[in-house]
Amino acid sequence: MRFIHTADWHLGKLFGQRHMTEDQAYVLEELLALCKDVRPDALVIAGDVYDRAIPPPEAVELFNEILTRLAAQGIRVLFIAGNHDSAVRLGFGAQLLRASGIYLAGAVRSAEPPVILSDKHGDVYFSLIPYGDPPHVREAFALNENVSFDGALVVQIAAARAQIPSSARSVAVAHAFVIGGQTSESEHALSVGGSDHVSAEHFAAYSYTALGHLHAPQRAGAENVRYSGSLLKYSFDEAHQKKGIELVELNAAGAASHTFYPLTPRHDVRIVRGMMDEIMTDTDPLPHDDYICVELFDTDAVLAAHEKLRRIYPNLFTITRPNINVNRLSSTERSYERGKSDLHLFSDFFAEVTDEQMTETERDELIRIIDSMEQGERAE
Amino acid sequence: MRFIHTADWHLGKLFGQRHMTEDQAYVLEELLALCKDVRPDALVIAGDVYDRAIPPPEAVELFNEILTRLAAQGIRVLFIAGNHDSAVRLGFGAQLLRASGIYLAGAVRSAEPPVILSDKHGDVYFSLIPYGDPPHVREAFALNENVSFDGALVVQIAAARAQIPSSARSVAVAHAFVIGGQTSESEHALSVGGSDHVSAEHFAAYSYTALGHLHAPQRAGAENVRYSGSLLKYSFDEAHQKKGIELVELNAAGAASHTFYPLTPRHDVRIVRGMMDEIMTDTDPLPHDDYICVELFDTDAVLAAHEKLRRIYPNLFTITRPNINVNRLSSTERSYERGKSDLHLFSDFFAEVTDEQMTETERDELIRIIDSMEQGERAE
Repeated sequence: MRFIHTADWHLGKLFGQRHMTEDQAYVLEELLALCKDVRPDALVIAGDVYDRAIPPPEAVELFNEILTRLAAQGIRVLFIAGNHDSAVRLGFGAQLLRASGIYLAGAVRSAEPPVILSDKHGDVYFSLIPYGDPPHVREAFALNENVSFDGALVVQIAAARAQIPSSARSVAVAHAFVIGGQTSESEHALSVGGSDHVSAEHFAAYSYTALGHLHAPQRAGAENVRYSGSLLKYSFDEAHQKKGIELVELNAAGAASHTFYPLTPRHDVRIVRGMMDEIMTDTDPLPHDDYICVELFDTDAVLAAHEKLRRIYPNLFTITRPNINVNRLSSTERSYERGKSDLHLFSDFFAEVTDEQMTETERDELIRIIDSMEQGERAE
Repeated sequence: MRFIHTADWHLGKLFGQRHMTEDQAYVLEELLALCKDVRPDALVIAGDVYDRAIPPPEAVELFNEILTRLAAQGIRVLFIAGNHDSAVRLGFGAQLLRASGIYLAGAVRSAEPPVILSDKHGDVYFSLIPYGDPPHVREAFALNENVSFDGALVVQIAAARAQIPSSARSVAVAHAFVIGGQTSESEHALSVGGSDHVSAEHFAAYSYTALGHLHAPQRAGAENVRYSGSLLKYSFDEAHQKKGIELVELNAAGAASHTFYPLTPRHDVRIVRGMMDEIMTDTDPLPHDDYICVELFDTDAVLAAHEKLRRIYPNLFTITRPNINVNRLSSTERSYERGKSDLHLFSDFFAEVTDEQMTETERDELIRIIDSMEQGERAE
């Protein structure tokens, strides 16, 4: 059994005020070509197909086209909702699309049946474990008590495992923040304060676990519990990451091996560092139409920096000034500067306006409010 | 060949500030029960599946459930986008869903293939003709010139007919304002100034034409060119209309007969007329939780009318006062009162503010602006 593990496509994503749809279509062409080469039995997308609950029509059109072409190639497609997707909207047609070899799980359900694919060695059971906030999991499974993210995943996995013979080869597809993973700015935290972490050990019974959520390709706790990483670089702190897919092979005994295949974007995402004078002499050998963040080392004022740098880098998205003393900025500006969380931003704002720090109680209440707002957004 | 013709479900509709989803689910249960009884070969929905381009998740969930259950009953479902639908969003999965007996046409395409269903007498060709604004039709068919609504439909039908043997039995499914039809307030005009009308003659080659757009069930030009009407009453000027579906039979020779089956809503939509005193004595034998418009005949002031009437009619949506001299209202209020078009409303507003009537040129420009705004909304 051979399948491609990919995740976090974020179709319809805006990056630097630019719709990424064309870039996504470009790199998906390469993925389709790769599928023709390696002829996998299936392609697995571990959540965040779209960047938001209501993606733009172009993103819907693109995903439809990719699914249709994969099905025409005879490749089964398995996917789940991530925290960016609308579980209900992404879940449309779940039952009906199975006849075309498309298997998907949108909203959390207590009795999500495994998808069973076969090769000459027998069956492989795929557990589709869509992203669910703890309150949704509680509701779907009619639990009596609140659960943590970790507790919710334990419940989902237990229900999935109950439908799989213990000796069978099996694959989990999930969208979660598994402990130890390395984060990037373009992921939205599932919760604030670290309560969103789940343990990799829960996946121990699976031959392989295809994870989504973190944008860097990486192992998570074990060699066979992995993030494939996102389809493209979606923030400048991902500039150093390799993007691509994992080709996973399960042998007759259910041992998994994996090979990373890089994908080549239409525009790379790069940080160009230096003094204004150096950069303007333009010795950069890399494509100048990449998506660029310029880190200007100058400490003095630089006039019309954007205008000048755009002449060299037409897709300049942002300029940072690491050597400018951030204390000259207000604390709120500083927070934005450093990509702080909503919790930090509000805490700073609170301190600035009241001249006092929030109490523990106030902070807990704020966490509750931010969480419930984010869950409201996701519920869409 | 026996199929159900329905249209204008408007799932996710708000009526009287109330989401109609539960009412729609209720009446669709009756439709599903009817399907079990009459066992049609297919169910045809002639556009406006949803009430808007981005329907609420509950509406998406409901439509998914209905499609899934119809497919499980072995009933083919054919549907097209209407002017309320997002052609792209509704079109998701068009190719992939065919394997489950779901055939749909979202965006206008120049080569939309007919859907061919068979019975013991042979094939029946269904032309799915989704709603398209003239500019979309022009683009899809790469036409050199602007077309009218009528001209656009001629192009769509010609392309559809070119794929059907001339002697074959055939059914057109379209969403349009066919000349002579009777309008209701809850339809959105396709255009202003009457330019949206199309001729029924274009459908002459078809054994039957299943139309959507107008909410009253009716013939349109010919006995076999029909509107099934909407699923429910969606405005008070539809209170007198019967709502239901047409069961259409095509015989071996392609002659169509049709039978109207009424559907019973969870809440009827009614207008209650009378003096306040009469109404408050409450001799109305009909269900008091219907959706109610009260036409108060009183000419004097009536204190706390809403509050009093709601005690009797908990689902009172609106009160009208036909005997209050409308000249006491501003002309803008009067226009709203009478359900005038955007064009009329703006013309009145213009006259009120400038003390002059719009010139012909100004009026033409306004029509152009309203049309392009409405097309922009539809393009979503």
